[in-house]
Order: sequence, then C-alpha cells, then structure tokens
Amino acid sequence: MPAQKRKNLRDAIVDEALKIIDETGVESLSLREVARRLGTSHQAPYKHFPSRDHILAEVLSRAYGDFAAFLDDRPKTGDSYTDLGAMGLRYFEYARAHPLHYRLMFNTPPPDPAAHPEMMDQARHAFSLLRDAIADLPLQHGDPDAPGAAELDALFVWSTIHGLVSILHSDLIGCLQIPPDALAQAIPRVLMRLSLALEEAEPAPTSSGTLQSDP
Amino acid sequence: MPAQKRKNLRDAIVDEALKIIDETGVESLSLREVARRLGTSHQAPYKHFPSRDHILAEVLSRAYGDFAAFLDDRPKTGDSYTDLGAMGLRYFEYARAHPLHYRLMFNTPPPDPAAHPEMMDQARHAFSLLRDAIADLPLQHGDPDAPGAAELDALFVWSTIHGLVSILHSDLIGCLQIPPDALAQAIPRVLMRLSLALEEAEPAPTSSGTLQSDP
Repeated sequence: MPAQKRKNLRDAIVDEALKIIDETGVESLSLREVARRLGTSHQAPYKHFPSRDHILAEVLSRAYGDFAAFLDDRPKTGDSYTDLGAMGLRYFEYARAHPLHYRLMFNTPPPDPAAHPEMMDQARHAFSLLRDAIADLPLQHGDPDAPGAAELDALFVWSTIHGLVSILHSDLIGCLQIPPDALAQAIPRVLMRLSLALEEAEPAPTSSGTLQSDP
Repeated sequence: MPAQKRKNLRDAIVDEALKIIDETGVESLSLREVARRLGTSHQAPYKHFPSRDHILAEVLSRAYGDFAAFLDDRPKTGDSYTDLGAMGLRYFEYARAHPLHYRLMFNTPPPDPAAHPEMMDQARHAFSLLRDAIADLPLQHGDPDAPGAAELDALFVWSTIHGLVSILHSDLIGCLQIPPDALAQAIPRVLMRLSLALEEAEPAPTSSGTLQSDP
C-alpha cells in the first residue's frame, strides 16, 4: 500500500474511533468495530495499531497535543500574570468547545500509561506549559525555589480550573440556587481568586466581566 | 407489616443498592435486582420506592447528609481561617475514606434533581456549610457583600478541592513526574494557596506538613 494511503487509513481509524466513542462510549471501541465502519478488512487496522488501547492512546495523544497547542496559541504580553490569566481562559474555552476530548483526557481512565509513552509525553507537555508559566511568577510564599514547587502550584491552578469545569458542567450546579447573574461571573471571579493565591499585588476587579482576558 | 420491619426493609434496600453500585456499576441498579438479592418479592421494594431513581436519590440524599455532618463535625476554634482549613482537610479525608460515595455524589449524573427535592436539599445543605464558612472571612476583593459573592467564593474553594481530589485519584498524576516528596505536600500547599486567595494576611508555612489542620 502506498505511504500516503497508509497514512490516510491511520488518520481515518483515529477519526472513526472518536465517532464510536462519542456515539456509544469508550467501552464499545474495538478494532473490529472500527474496521466494520470503515469498510476495511478486519486485519487492516492491525497494520497501524496492535490493539484497541493503541488506538485510544493515539486519540488521547493527539488530544493532549491539540489541547497544549490551543493553550499556547495566545497573544503573549510579557506580563506573567496577564499571560497566565489568558491561558486560564483558553482552558475554559477548550473545555467548552471540545467536551468529548476534554472528557477523554481528564475524566476517563486512560490506557496503561507505561505502555504508551507518546501519550504520556503529550500529557506531560500540556502540564509543562502551565508549570513554566507558574515558574515565571514572582512568588513569595511556599518556598518557590524548592524542588517541585512550581509543579505543586501548577497542580493547584489546574485543580481549580478542572474542578470548576467539572462542577459547571454537572447537574449539581443547578441545585445550589446561586443567582444566575452571580453564576455568570464564576470564571472571572475564580481567576481573580487565583491571582490573589499567586500573590499578584492588585488583581483587576471582576466587575469588568473578565479578568486578564485578551483586550 | 409492622413499622419497624418496614423501616428495616427500607434501610436494607438502600444498603443493597450501594453494594450493587459498588460491584457492577450504577447502570445495573434496578428494583428487580434489589428484590432478587434481598430475597423479597418483586413488589416489596415498590412499597418504599416507586422507581430505581428513587432508590438512587435516597442513596445520594443520605450520602450528602453524612458528608455534611462529617464536614461539620470538627473542633471549632472561632478563628474563621483555621476553621475553614479544618473543613478542607475533612473534605479530603471523606473523599479518601468513602470513594464510592464521593464518586456517586460528585462524578455521576444524579437522578432528575427536580423530581427529588430531598436529595437537592441535602446537597444544598453541604454546600451551605462551605458558603457560611466563607461568609465569615474578612474578604476585601471581589465586592464580598454583592449578591452571590460568598456562593462564588465557595464555588472557587470547592472547585479547587474537588479538582485536586479528582486529579490525585486519576492515572494522569503518575504521568507528570512530580517528585514524590513534593507530591506528598500537595494538599497542604493547595490549602496554603487557598488561604492567600482568601486573603489571609500570613498563612502558615507549608513545611509544617499541614496547614491550619487540627492542633
């Protein structure tokens, strides 16, 4: 088979896997089902992926890569707080625009990480963008030069944003009787609190609607 | 049937439902399966619960109630930051000790909230404990007296702690190559950052292992 056609089949397998996951859940992903839907022989997908976990790892690997590129593709101002705030808004934007990818990356048990190093590398790369943005901040508390300090602060920021995405997308949020006008301010307010947590001297007020968003 | 026996059957149904969910997932919960495992007639559970969603709502209602009682059952010092930090530690402790209840409350689509007001009331009560603890803090930023301000700050704190629980319990955390010594400090460090976010003048250092934990 020519190289170009092989490449196309590989991409087609990944695309079809995503459709299967979207329509019937990650449990129903199998090489056989992918082959059936693509109209190829049962053997054809095996030339590219030794198992369904390898397909899923490739789906995840590409998702982490796209996610990291999306986080990174923002105007850089040179002000470390502004740039971190913009990254936070990009995170919320990605989660809203790509709920299936988001769920697969962060709310679904992945294939064995040790068996899929490329997937791990891509996940780590996304995290390192946040870690590096945190390392640029002039922090005073919590011994910022200690080993792992920037990683822990990145874990803090990621936890906050991931937690808010999860809660805002859950049915629970409707139970809490938060006034709608207030709830609409949840993201800027959380970003304001994150700024204070990361010791920005004077965070922008939340009344402007967004904090440290693009101008 | 005597009232005491009826009450026991109701409790037995709830207990058995939890076992079913634990063993085979929430999708496999049904009135028929509960009756089969309890050795009662198919009709017996219907005397207490009109549908499997009503059983699930009762499971959740009790879980929220127990969770709230656990959060509230801590020594109160009268210092609002210390008391909030202790509540945070209780939250982590509950999530570690009761992973099934935690997952059902916060990571599983609930039955229609509008059809199960008691479940909603219990969920709201747990949130109100956090909200009230936040309302006691002397906050300066973000117009603390505005309608919904304490709710949004409670949402911020809950997002952070829920997000950290989710990430620490996921397979992803192992991919990030955070030094184990540092990772062991994740909870106290996140509580330290939360203190700064909530404008405590001088949060305790994280090197003591725990921040604002019980003495």
